[in-house]
Amino acid sequence: MADTCIRDCHALVPDTSGALTVVRNQDILVRGNRIAEIRPTGRPPEPGVTVLEGQRMLAMPGLINTHTHVPMVLFRGLAEDVSFERWFNEFVWPLESNLTEADVYWGALLGLLEMIEGGVTTAADHYFFMDQVARAVEEAGTRAHLGWAVFSSRGRGVLDETAAFAERWKGGAGGRITTCMAPHAPFTCDDGFLRASVEHASRIGVGIHIHAAEDMNQTNASVERRGLTPIQVLRDTGVLSVPALIAHGCGLLPQDIELLARYRKHVGIAHAPKTYLKLAMGITPIHALRKAGVAVGLATDGAASNNTLDVFESLRLMALMQKHEAMDPEVMPIAEALDIATRGSAAAMGLGDRIGTLAPGYQADIILVDTRGAHWQPPHNLTAGLVYSARASDVHTVMVDGRVILQERRHLTLDKERILAEVAGTMERMARRVPEARIQRYQP
Amino acid sequence: MADTCIRDCHALVPDTSGALTVVRNQDILVRGNRIAEIRPTGRPPEPGVTVLEGQRMLAMPGLINTHTHVPMVLFRGLAEDVSFERWFNEFVWPLESNLTEADVYWGALLGLLEMIEGGVTTAADHYFFMDQVARAVEEAGTRAHLGWAVFSSRGRGVLDETAAFAERWKGGAGGRITTCMAPHAPFTCDDGFLRASVEHASRIGVGIHIHAAEDMNQTNASVERRGLTPIQVLRDTGVLSVPALIAHGCGLLPQDIELLARYRKHVGIAHAPKTYLKLAMGITPIHALRKAGVAVGLATDGAASNNTLDVFESLRLMALMQKHEAMDPEVMPIAEALDIATRGSAAAMGLGDRIGTLAPGYQADIILVDTRGAHWQPPHNLTAGLVYSARASDVHTVMVDGRVILQERRHLTLDKERILAEVAGTMERMARRVPEARIQRYQP
Repeated sequence: MADTCIRDCHALVPDTSGALTVVRNQDILVRGNRIAEIRPTGRPPEPGVTVLEGQRMLAMPGLINTHTHVPMVLFRGLAEDVSFERWFNEFVWPLESNLTEADVYWGALLGLLEMIEGGVTTAADHYFFMDQVARAVEEAGTRAHLGWAVFSSRGRGVLDETAAFAERWKGGAGGRITTCMAPHAPFTCDDGFLRASVEHASRIGVGIHIHAAEDMNQTNASVERRGLTPIQVLRDTGVLSVPALIAHGCGLLPQDIELLARYRKHVGIAHAPKTYLKLAMGITPIHALRKAGVAVGLATDGAASNNTLDVFESLRLMALMQKHEAMDPEVMPIAEALDIATRGSAAAMGLGDRIGTLAPGYQADIILVDTRGAHWQPPHNLTAGLVYSARASDVHTVMVDGRVILQERRHLTLDKERILAEVAGTMERMARRVPEARIQRYQP
Repeated sequence: MADTCIRDCHALVPDTSGALTVVRNQDILVRGNRIAEIRPTGRPPEPGVTVLEGQRMLAMPGLINTHTHVPMVLFRGLAEDVSFERWFNEFVWPLESNLTEADVYWGALLGLLEMIEGGVTTAADHYFFMDQVARAVEEAGTRAHLGWAVFSSRGRGVLDETAAFAERWKGGAGGRITTCMAPHAPFTCDDGFLRASVEHASRIGVGIHIHAAEDMNQTNASVERRGLTPIQVLRDTGVLSVPALIAHGCGLLPQDIELLARYRKHVGIAHAPKTYLKLAMGITPIHALRKAGVAVGLATDGAASNNTLDVFESLRLMALMQKHEAMDPEVMPIAEALDIATRGSAAAMGLGDRIGTLAPGYQADIILVDTRGAHWQPPHNLTAGLVYSARASDVHTVMVDGRVILQERRHLTLDKERILAEVAGTMERMARRVPEARIQRYQP
């Protein structure tokens, strides 16, 4: 792979105290798949290095989507203005019975198109037919953390298959793919199933990606039924003893946060605020989690609730909602919001030493955000711009693992026309809905 | 002006029950500055009519920004993560002492550039040096409702000047400009000043655009100081007896809503949710207002709080926040959100019979939203797309008063390069901040 110099960009980097700040007019030298050097612009580029001009571009770590169901873009707009329970039982779980392996492949590619165009370089995907998602990620050139979603209603045997997937693709796509076990949630997976998932995870050397305490109703139902919060169930079944990525935690109680703090070295929370607002699930207690040292990352969730896979929007909503809920505009200042979007998300996925930071030695997952638009002018404050003005459509160039995959908004790895045509062709079939054909029943 | 046929677009129109819906494959015929006909596509266009191809475009009424301070884009990003009181006293009101007439002109043009690119065809602007804003609007070709902001600390005489402005520009720019009196707020304008504003408004035949009950602190302070809510002050001073556009109403009490209901024929509320979240002001009680028959419209407020002038973002935040605050995802369904964004905003400004609806006889303020992006696919649900997927950058074509002013995102009326250069040239001066030089003190 050719080495690259991103010339004369502004760069979002940690200052000497570790706080994220924008340093103007920098060159970023990438060697192979890693960042080699970030230095003030001016020196002629090394011989043989490909130069990417970065004037008036803001370089930042590629965005990380810590919890999504990528192929659900196929159901975009089909479950609107309905309760959480109806969303599952009458819409999403019946719709998902339509899916074939090929649908998941094309759906994953559509979601990847959208995410790449929005500067997302890594996604933690929790879905079905995951070999197809892995294949799509391999082609797209992005990074991904993949787990095959399962319910215990399918019997213990499915875990062997999903574990085989996790083993097959661990370190896949030249190291860009990491894998995990992905039991759906404590209310859809019995304790034995969760324990067996943990055993598989330990044996393979991976973690677990799971939904838990999604809202306060689930927490209350769990406490009522068995005297334990969903997080306590995760502790008792061993889930917290392996690397665990937990969505969404809007139903966390103070004792849950204390508990999570004990496992903070390898447990993270995925926060997907647009879904929470749209489905009225409450809001993850981010301040308390971070105070307890638990990593929090940004997520979109699937497009059947969020409608898009736009992490810039998640970032903005996260910051706005933390201020609103605390009734204090000084809460969640810009540097902290950007910390969550970058280092927080990387840490929540257990990849904090490899991605989420622009610094020598890190993987070269870098996006260039175009700051020339009218909505950025005048550019008094570029960090404020990233949180409060940036749009997914400002993403100009995307590099993953040292390779440019989007340049001036043109895809270099994916055939956009073909993907859109394939998805258009299955649209009608995707929208058919037979409630009795649902893949699972929501009953927390 | 040439007549135009927008051919084969999807159109957001009222169905027979009045609910907004998208009808696919329509031709919209515009004659002069009005919509003449909306009909299924297929008939050859009338001779001499200019054809605008609308395939896979969604035509909707131009967005309306019912409360903003357009030239404040000059201060974008300069007042971040601070309390409401510090936002005024330490940042915005000192910064505004930097403004010259020329700054307001170029600032207005920058804000208009941004709004046109985001599909905003009408803005209610509440600011200073308003002749400059009117001049900018005239050049841009947009529609505007303009009021010159004043505080009673400046003495009663300023009202003569701002009334002269309202008279001078009433019906200006070929009828695209309407005007009003714009006393700042009940806590910055004494009762006599408000009464005099009403007298001027009545004499000229215009309304009043004012801030009131912006948050609960202002309401509490008013009740404590004088035993009246800000809305009761507006009633007592006669403001509610003329057409009144009120921002922001996050501090409305139930008795205020009852009071507003009595004046609902000519009173509207401007709702700017991003500012409220960012400054932790609470949320306008939209459901109660609409139940009481009071028109509610969407707004951005100024870019010093919002950071952008993006009404698509206001629409999305409005819908999401109403669900969240009610803890009910069935609240504020898509059709209602779109009703607020179109007919609600027009009604709040007293222009409900002229703009905000795609139907024969209405002014031809039409935008084409490009639905071809990955984040719209597959297009199962275009109304959901408008509320939950659309980005300002999806706006492809903008027509105001029958004239195309943005085509394929190119400006036809404004010189973007020149405007950005002028604004860049004053950027440093705009950012200087001398607290003692503030134009007013915040002390509700």
